[in-house]
Amino acid sequence: MWGGRFASGPAEIMEEINASIGFDKRLAPQDIRGSLAHVAMLGRTGILPPADVAAIEAGLKTVQAEIEAGSFTFARALEDIHMNVESRLREIVGPAAGRLHTARSRNDQVATDMRLWVRDTLDALDAQAADLQRALAEAALRHAGTVMPGFTHLQSAQPVTFGHHLLAYVEMLGRDRGRFRDARARLNECPLGAAALAGTSFPIDRHDTARALGFDRPTANSLDSVADRDFALEALAAAAIAAVHLSRFAEEIVIWTSAQFGFVRLSDRFTTGSSIMPQKRNPDAAELVRAKAGRVIGALSGLLIVMKGLPLAYSKDMQEDKEGTFDALQTLSLCLAAMAGMVRDLEPVPEVLKQAAGAGYATATDLADWLVRELGLPFRDAHHVTGRLVGLASARGVGLEALTLPEMQAEEPRITDAVYAVLGVENSVASRTSYGGTAPGNVRAQAERWLEALGGEPA
Amino acid sequence: MWGGRFASGPAEIMEEINASIGFDKRLAPQDIRGSLAHVAMLGRTGILPPADVAAIEAGLKTVQAEIEAGSFTFARALEDIHMNVESRLREIVGPAAGRLHTARSRNDQVATDMRLWVRDTLDALDAQAADLQRALAEAALRHAGTVMPGFTHLQSAQPVTFGHHLLAYVEMLGRDRGRFRDARARLNECPLGAAALAGTSFPIDRHDTARALGFDRPTANSLDSVADRDFALEALAAAAIAAVHLSRFAEEIVIWTSAQFGFVRLSDRFTTGSSIMPQKRNPDAAELVRAKAGRVIGALSGLLIVMKGLPLAYSKDMQEDKEGTFDALQTLSLCLAAMAGMVRDLEPVPEVLKQAAGAGYATATDLADWLVRELGLPFRDAHHVTGRLVGLASARGVGLEALTLPEMQAEEPRITDAVYAVLGVENSVASRTSYGGTAPGNVRAQAERWLEALGGEPA
Amino acid sequence: MWGGRFASGPAEIMEEINASIGFDKRLAPQDIRGSLAHVAMLGRTGILPPADVAAIEAGLKTVQAEIEAGSFTFARALEDIHMNVESRLREIVGPAAGRLHTARSRNDQVATDMRLWVRDTLDALDAQAADLQRALAEAALRHAGTVMPGFTHLQSAQPVTFGHHLLAYVEMLGRDRGRFRDARARLNECPLGAAALAGTSFPIDRHDTARALGFDRPTANSLDSVADRDFALEALAAAAIAAVHLSRFAEEIVIWTSAQFGFVRLSDRFTTGSSIMPQKRNPDAAELVRAKAGRVIGALSGLLIVMKGLPLAYSKDMQEDKEGTFDALQTLSLCLAAMAGMVRDLEPVPEVLKQAAGAGYATATDLADWLVRELGLPFRDAHHVTGRLVGLASARGVGLEALTLPEMQAEEPRITDAVYAVLGVENSVASRTSYGGTAPGNVRAQAERWLEALGGEPA
Amino acid sequence: MWGGRFASGPAEIMEEINASIGFDKRLAPQDIRGSLAHVAMLGRTGILPPADVAAIEAGLKTVQAEIEAGSFTFARALEDIHMNVESRLREIVGPAAGRLHTARSRNDQVATDMRLWVRDTLDALDAQAADLQRALAEAALRHAGTVMPGFTHLQSAQPVTFGHHLLAYVEMLGRDRGRFRDARARLNECPLGAAALAGTSFPIDRHDTARALGFDRPTANSLDSVADRDFALEALAAAAIAAVHLSRFAEEIVIWTSAQFGFVRLSDRFTTGSSIMPQKRNPDAAELVRAKAGRVIGALSGLLIVMKGLPLAYSKDMQEDKEGTFDALQTLSLCLAAMAGMVRDLEPVPEVLKQAAGAGYATATDLADWLVRELGLPFRDAHHVTGRLVGLASARGVGLEALTLPEMQAEEPRITDAVYAVLGVENSVASRTSYGGTAPGNVRAQAERWLEALGGEPA
Repeated sequence: MWGGRFASGPAEIMEEINASIGFDKRLAPQDIRGSLAHVAMLGRTGILPPADVAAIEAGLKTVQAEIEAGSFTFARALEDIHMNVESRLREIVGPAAGRLHTARSRNDQVATDMRLWVRDTLDALDAQAADLQRALAEAALRHAGTVMPGFTHLQSAQPVTFGHHLLAYVEMLGRDRGRFRDARARLNECPLGAAALAGTSFPIDRHDTARALGFDRPTANSLDSVADRDFALEALAAAAIAAVHLSRFAEEIVIWTSAQFGFVRLSDRFTTGSSIMPQKRNPDAAELVRAKAGRVIGALSGLLIVMKGLPLAYSKDMQEDKEGTFDALQTLSLCLAAMAGMVRDLEPVPEVLKQAAGAGYATATDLADWLVRELGLPFRDAHHVTGRLVGLASARGVGLEALTLPEMQAEEPRITDAVYAVLGVENSVASRTSYGGTAPGNVRAQAERWLEALGGEPA
Repeated sequence: MWGGRFASGPAEIMEEINASIGFDKRLAPQDIRGSLAHVAMLGRTGILPPADVAAIEAGLKTVQAEIEAGSFTFARALEDIHMNVESRLREIVGPAAGRLHTARSRNDQVATDMRLWVRDTLDALDAQAADLQRALAEAALRHAGTVMPGFTHLQSAQPVTFGHHLLAYVEMLGRDRGRFRDARARLNECPLGAAALAGTSFPIDRHDTARALGFDRPTANSLDSVADRDFALEALAAAAIAAVHLSRFAEEIVIWTSAQFGFVRLSDRFTTGSSIMPQKRNPDAAELVRAKAGRVIGALSGLLIVMKGLPLAYSKDMQEDKEGTFDALQTLSLCLAAMAGMVRDLEPVPEVLKQAAGAGYATATDLADWLVRELGLPFRDAHHVTGRLVGLASARGVGLEALTLPEMQAEEPRITDAVYAVLGVENSVASRTSYGGTAPGNVRAQAERWLEALGGEPA
Repeated sequence: MWGGRFASGPAEIMEEINASIGFDKRLAPQDIRGSLAHVAMLGRTGILPPADVAAIEAGLKTVQAEIEAGSFTFARALEDIHMNVESRLREIVGPAAGRLHTARSRNDQVATDMRLWVRDTLDALDAQAADLQRALAEAALRHAGTVMPGFTHLQSAQPVTFGHHLLAYVEMLGRDRGRFRDARARLNECPLGAAALAGTSFPIDRHDTARALGFDRPTANSLDSVADRDFALEALAAAAIAAVHLSRFAEEIVIWTSAQFGFVRLSDRFTTGSSIMPQKRNPDAAELVRAKAGRVIGALSGLLIVMKGLPLAYSKDMQEDKEGTFDALQTLSLCLAAMAGMVRDLEPVPEVLKQAAGAGYATATDLADWLVRELGLPFRDAHHVTGRLVGLASARGVGLEALTLPEMQAEEPRITDAVYAVLGVENSVASRTSYGGTAPGNVRAQAERWLEALGGEPA
Repeated sequence: MWGGRFASGPAEIMEEINASIGFDKRLAPQDIRGSLAHVAMLGRTGILPPADVAAIEAGLKTVQAEIEAGSFTFARALEDIHMNVESRLREIVGPAAGRLHTARSRNDQVATDMRLWVRDTLDALDAQAADLQRALAEAALRHAGTVMPGFTHLQSAQPVTFGHHLLAYVEMLGRDRGRFRDARARLNECPLGAAALAGTSFPIDRHDTARALGFDRPTANSLDSVADRDFALEALAAAAIAAVHLSRFAEEIVIWTSAQFGFVRLSDRFTTGSSIMPQKRNPDAAELVRAKAGRVIGALSGLLIVMKGLPLAYSKDMQEDKEGTFDALQTLSLCLAAMAGMVRDLEPVPEVLKQAAGAGYATATDLADWLVRELGLPFRDAHHVTGRLVGLASARGVGLEALTLPEMQAEEPRITDAVYAVLGVENSVASRTSYGGTAPGNVRAQAERWLEALGGEPA
């Protein structure tokens, strides 16, 4: 495989550590697609005669068909997907196969394959994230007015609506999708034709192959083309951030489905039982989504570490870009699918949510704001008065609305019984009409805006 | 500070773990800027009377002046920058200070401060990266034709030019800057007005404060506004990738300045001596740039871990966003500055580079390509013939050009003495005229294109 | 500082990136301690005359006193702690100061300082972890019989006791302490005398300095001595695992103090209020402990990355070992202290815990086990019968104990009314007497065993 | 599988995310071993009758034989290895199979399986690391006196010997093995019998199963037993540190085999060629070893992240412990094997090493030490004189030994021509006789000490 100079073959352990076919066979479609574009260009530029081009194209399609049919035999001794395909091609079309590698190297070939795979995968992740946004926005529309506690520090802070809460994730996913698309746009340059690292003396047309493979343009520096993997790093970083977003919702689902919270219900489709505790309905899918963020972050760290400190151009270290990237992006895909399934499956329990929203003096801020707005107290003073009233109610074990007017007036004489209107959770929620606030009208408008933007049909 | 309800103060260890003023005082400029925008809006919307607005504005400016003058006393008991500023404001303007916090919470306040800081820092990093690109492109133009070995696996592969090598980093930095700008564009929404988490019932104008602070628009969901830190994660990810790029060039500088390579020289300005070995000229700055990638990646991992699995909305965990983000982005700034200094300082040693470029059969590919181009051999066969000729020359300890024509013809009878022309390194480099290839004309054109795009004067 | 050969000084940015005095001044006590041991050995071996030794010792003690008194001026131009101390020593004792560095290099000096610092810190962490174990074991003894739900998947699974739950953390901390001690034992070899990297030709006595500094022996290979930092990596790894343990208990405290769980109460000493929501009692200390695991893991990753791929012996990259190690180990110290404070502060709410323990069919396993034990059903069949009975009770919204005997017998005719005895949570807990099980007697015995092993008085 | 209560099956995506059989089938040997120990104990304690025990034992052995023969069909619908084995057991022995799960849960079962797997793997890694030590020590003995440059900052610092350099790695591996053994000792407690989380009411004998499985004792707290994975984290941390050690040697091999260094030669067995550059001898195995540290560190980070913040006891997140642990520990195994192969394959090139050792004023320290020792100069003064002499020689482009005595005396009048003796590299090396220093006698003694300690035959 490496020309005529090597006297003895590699050590067995060398073959084991070196061979990548076990995982890079996944790049077969991209590899063949790249080869088809390359050979067509070699034909168009007259570098190869039409007969060779035709033979190679036919041969590549046969290889492709064999791989798709599962009849292709991958050989570890042939090391990687490129040599496996080329070796079979030679069996099919004879020596002409050897012309395919004209003006090309495995260095630019694998860089092209990986960009194509990452690009395809980012597109798929974008579509999946959009589907999850749709599921969330639809539920948000249904629950635009379903009151629930808004938490900070997992302590009830102010009432919000369930729809408003779900839309927070729609926003996050919107930024995640922005990152996927920016990564895609930035990677969409074609390294094919950079050859080993220096470019080539053959009169190739790199714009032609770039176009044929859907790239915006060829890369501008041949060393950079074969030496960098920042496109994979950027995709992994975007994936890690998205995985963290999903892990947060997953944590909420785990907490919300606990008996103590009881905020939502998941069906049998997304829970599991226990081998010894028959009553359990475990939110396994949510726990796994929560956990898998660790795996994606680990893959990102791993590849950053591999690339750190590597001299140009290609080093074999870079073969380690594949398994982590494959695994992490597919893990995110699995998590997006699982989360979309859970969102469509879960049902909030409105009466539990509403009761929780009203507990814990969650309208204390409404009282403080009322003191500011109606009585003109500086906010910090209003805050102080409210704190004392909460203390009084808490000592008596009742809600703020159970305090009498004289009790309130003992703290601040100008309080009138108009104050009682702001102590109800639905009034509270309805009053938060500032842009981005939780008032049901706002939530409905935002949900509709998103659904229109997302368009199409749910998956 | 937390209203009237708390009977006993915090434990000392609690104060120690809780207080952030030790590091968030760095946000003072952003905090005051945000407060000025907020109070101006409270005035414009009639929520506060003009007299209060004027008093608060004057007071904030006094605080700002005190901080800039170094006469401000930061108190740990006041916990964070927000309370330190507000407390001093109250001393200056009296109870009216308490009105500044109307329709605001520390949750949206700190989210605003951090976005402003990250945005300012991304802009500065973009400018620094552009300066480094300029230094590299200028050197590339000077050395567009300086031949050096192009390496793969740190083994000489094919000759390239020094300018071409430097331009590879210009490309990488170009993408890094793209990531900085995309991150900046995505974060440029104003969370101010999200209040604690639910929005507010005061008739605030969030578009007004967004505009005043240079944001493109207000954020669309109040929970998301105070609960997410993906803007910091994205900035850290972009910084980590850029730091990895710099670490690669740093590794090359370390290797190139070794006595064995001797490819480049760094002056005393960027090397250090040893306390015990007087002859040493250590590339410390390059080593530190190489190492500091670890710190930036660690900070990225750290914050991803902090955010993973956090329920909405604000949790105190998120206070941990600051130190790592501050440190990592400033570390990158330091590395960019050090690298720009080194690039302007370092001088390649052309005679060493050229000799190295010609050693190691680096034009073997040129021979193989000649066999394909001139004799029509399939690439794989040409590769095999070349391998045998290299083996022959290597066994004799000479270069390819020292083989006689009969020796060559013994492997492939059709070889003519025209072949000797492609065996010289300068011919090799000149022949790589494919787009992005290393031919000096290409390199010059790319360097000029970049310098024109970068414009302006070197920093 | 670097001898006479350097014509021009370092660039300003070089000084900024290079100087470590800003953070390594923390090593002053270790640095002086090491110098005192070194100079004493130089005297004992006759390498230095007694007068020089006496002068240097006196001078070093003066420097030490100045540093302790805060009157020492650290200069960035002197780069690091070693040169700062030596420079001041020269001012105090004159040229004799220059003899201190005989048979020594900054390379072995800094390796010694760091080992001493890490060793001291590991000892302190071990004591802090022991104190936390004591706090936990004391609470476990008080609550050996306080029934609470044992969770899997945050779903109630089987009743356990609060003491049993706390003892799980005592076990984890026990292993953490084992890791601290193993790390300490492994690092306890003295690198002093390795000099720059090759050892020295002076007739030094490395066993003498090793002994004087409390090391078990000198290191056996001089290159390894100055080139490795695995002792810091191991300490960081042990710290990261311990931080993860603490983060888990912190997560539980956050969940348990939520209104929905209400399992425990924290006093004002370990909670904070909100600037806008006066009713909040936020478990900030617990949230920060949970978060800070991210920081420690980030520091571990960071240093692993720095060391990865570094050729021997010392490279300047290794200067990056300090800030991360200092910060991470002190972060863990802060977390241990905060957690010990919280454990001593928190009070379980027995009635809430007991009610929760009995809800959710938590004794279903007890029923299944009864069917196996008393009726001889294979476990899987017993599991199936129990599952159906839980389903029946659940559909009716009642507990298992509310099912009538005929209802039970409809699923399994051999059930007798003896079954009702195993359906109570206290019986359930009392029955788990297997070694390590949650029966109160077991818990009490384990708590007492730990308290005896821990000895001493609470900190 | 989860009893009678579940009305509808899991969603397809749920099955996909939830099933672990794809990777945990690797635990089959451990799972069956654990089951055999458990059923034997159930028999000995009289919990199961002898006939059932015999049937189950025979059945388990049949299952084991089927798995070893490759005839066992793993079913994803059965989720994991435990249910796959049990299901087949039921087919073989009928309902009695259901009795195997008496007093056991998948929670303690999987914890036992993982401990057994990690323990076995740590033992194997220890043996492999010992073999690598042996290969290194044997080469060190052969090259105890082979002079080479000792580097700091990749700049020649002082001469050392090749054997001394190799022994540095023997020391590192010695500590790595210490970590493996400490991790093994700490994990060697048996969780079996903790059941789901609370222990059991069956009269099991946990000491019996612990003994049967080679554990030192049963775990002391049932919640801790099923809830923690610190044993995997500790093994991963030890592996990551070891991988970093190997990556350092790998980096050296990459640099040393470059044409510029030419310090060592690797045979065809551990190098590869290029598809386009026939002359290349790429040190792929070394590059892969260098890279794979990233993967191991990523796995460590990943699992720390998964465990961070998880409430007790078992959560499904913990299923993510497997793939990363399997992959990382096997990756280390592969790297150890590849490195042992390379060490046995590589040959230093003594003449190149010696020449490099003498270049770059590498004996400057010897000169400085001579000035101290013979003339009584304070070290700092000697350092300064040496620096000026190096500067003089460097300006003239010659070595220190080429300076005339008058030239030397112009800097320091007391220099005599005895000084020339210390300027040769072999004298330099021979003089470093301090404990741990590079003198050939030291190196030989250390190599022999290690070979004796390692004993046995090379693998």
